[in-house]
Amino acid sequence: MVSIREVARMAGVSPATVSRVMNGTAKVDEEKAQRVQKVIQETGFKPNEVARSLYKKSSKIIGLVVPNIENPFFNQMAKMIESEAYDNGYRVVLCNTNDNTEKERINIQMLTSMNADGIILMTSDEEIQPEIEKCGIPVVILDRQITHSEGTVYIHGDHYQGGRIATEHLIQCGCTNIVNIKGPQIFSSGRARYRGYRDVCKKYMIEEQCLECDYNFKDGLLVAEEILARYPKVDGIIACNDMVAISVYKVFSRAGISIPGQVQLLGFDNIELSYLMTPELTTIAQPSWEMGRKAMEMIIGDINYENGKREFTFPVKLIQRETTIPQE
Amino acid sequence: MVSIREVARMAGVSPATVSRVMNGTAKVDEEKAQRVQKVIQETGFKPNEVARSLYKKSSKIIGLVVPNIENPFFNQMAKMIESEAYDNGYRVVLCNTNDNTEKERINIQMLTSMNADGIILMTSDEEIQPEIEKCGIPVVILDRQITHSEGTVYIHGDHYQGGRIATEHLIQCGCTNIVNIKGPQIFSSGRARYRGYRDVCKKYMIEEQCLECDYNFKDGLLVAEEILARYPKVDGIIACNDMVAISVYKVFSRAGISIPGQVQLLGFDNIELSYLMTPELTTIAQPSWEMGRKAMEMIIGDINYENGKREFTFPVKLIQRETTIPQE
Repeated sequence: MVSIREVARMAGVSPATVSRVMNGTAKVDEEKAQRVQKVIQETGFKPNEVARSLYKKSSKIIGLVVPNIENPFFNQMAKMIESEAYDNGYRVVLCNTNDNTEKERINIQMLTSMNADGIILMTSDEEIQPEIEKCGIPVVILDRQITHSEGTVYIHGDHYQGGRIATEHLIQCGCTNIVNIKGPQIFSSGRARYRGYRDVCKKYMIEEQCLECDYNFKDGLLVAEEILARYPKVDGIIACNDMVAISVYKVFSRAGISIPGQVQLLGFDNIELSYLMTPELTTIAQPSWEMGRKAMEMIIGDINYENGKREFTFPVKLIQRETTIPQE
Repeated sequence: MVSIREVARMAGVSPATVSRVMNGTAKVDEEKAQRVQKVIQETGFKPNEVARSLYKKSSKIIGLVVPNIENPFFNQMAKMIESEAYDNGYRVVLCNTNDNTEKERINIQMLTSMNADGIILMTSDEEIQPEIEKCGIPVVILDRQITHSEGTVYIHGDHYQGGRIATEHLIQCGCTNIVNIKGPQIFSSGRARYRGYRDVCKKYMIEEQCLECDYNFKDGLLVAEEILARYPKVDGIIACNDMVAISVYKVFSRAGISIPGQVQLLGFDNIELSYLMTPELTTIAQPSWEMGRKAMEMIIGDINYENGKREFTFPVKLIQRETTIPQE
């Protein structure tokens, strides 16, 4: 007797799609539905009724897999999603992976065995894709993006525009020696922001000056020291996120360099701290509340709604505060 | 046929204790063991073998229930526990409750139904106790404390000493007009720190000046404005945690009041940010790594080890940085 996973593999679709075809719970692409029906006929697949009922029954659990719970962008997002889920009668199981693909895999397996209604994944990298494909429950990838796979929805801010807006803003502030602290290039967010920076540099014929840094305070301190050593003429810094911007501020002010007097600075994410620090930090904001709500909707409602739309890009915007001074 | 829960109720113990008596997995108080044996005989209780094997089998899941994932003290603790658990072959299911007892209850039920090996709970208040009593799995209460209940372990920093050390330090720094921002008094941590402050005030015959504030940035901003309005002569502030101290710093520096020049300031928790802000924040540190590790040990090992010791108090210490200036 074949399993639903084997049927899915033979039809070249996800187990969730096989389930949808059998249960009629949601629309499936006509051509795919036919492939599934054909495999079901050929193999004589009859789902175990117990397994089937388990498969259909909602556990009212949503899995939320975050790369680093210490990053305020992620924990603020987690808090919003938890609150929204609770209001809709769902519970959120939160898993922290420290950007470790093996931990992501283990957590996806755990959530699958819990029969979670869906997983909201802020994933690390491409390697996790096979696990997503085989887990058989709806997966929404939030903030980051991996190669498109069937049955997966992507929700993210417009990181490319973010990179452009940040760079254009520093140029408007009169900076001529801009250093871009790239986020890790294994993440789509880091790559897209870098492309935005690069394209604006080309437009103004400015030389690229880049360093790479993880999204945390500690690496921010190290990269700031490196900028001091390597780029003594720097007058503008794009930090890969607000945490790194806070670290840069600390190192530069210790070194007696005034921000924004001598060096202008901006970050990404608009975390609560960006407003609480003195001076207040200029940053690029994503509509994280709306993004979290959309992710929830896709799980609670149906991942196939909106005519099968699979990718949602949210606009970002500049929040100009005190670490940059636009020229009139 | 009676269930394990009914046996437990009749014997006046937790289901976990019944399980321990039947499986001999850990020592149980002799008198309690006899009560359990008696009820088993009287009722002819025979545990369903499936249920029993489920009960005994380790799910390798540890539940971690935190009151507010945005608070760095909790998310740093969560990250440490997750990492320690992973190294020991366990997975951590993290639940955020926003200090909402109903959410705590729901999460404890969910973790129980997942057959978690134990729950590490940073609880809100006394109301949750009945849920803990009946869940039947080991519960470690971390950082806070509620009325002792059977089978529960308490792990916390010495909040009372923390309150004393903070107040003594400001007095050593020459402050004569100290305002104490109390944490919420529904939490044992807030109450104990307040008692420490109060006792030192008595010792030096200083008048108490207190306000109360939730452990977050937003309420910190409001309470700081209130101090400005109500206590114009303030020269020392004990903030209920580092987040609130950061908010106080912001409001006071906006108001043109120099810290530490005119007002000295300290917080609690030694979060990463306390070192990153400029000036660096003086704070009271708890050994959170050791506390998290101890909580893990109690779940992974056996909650009954160490001769049934039920409460572990960890010493706290002053981390003197730049927001206070001790007098020679």
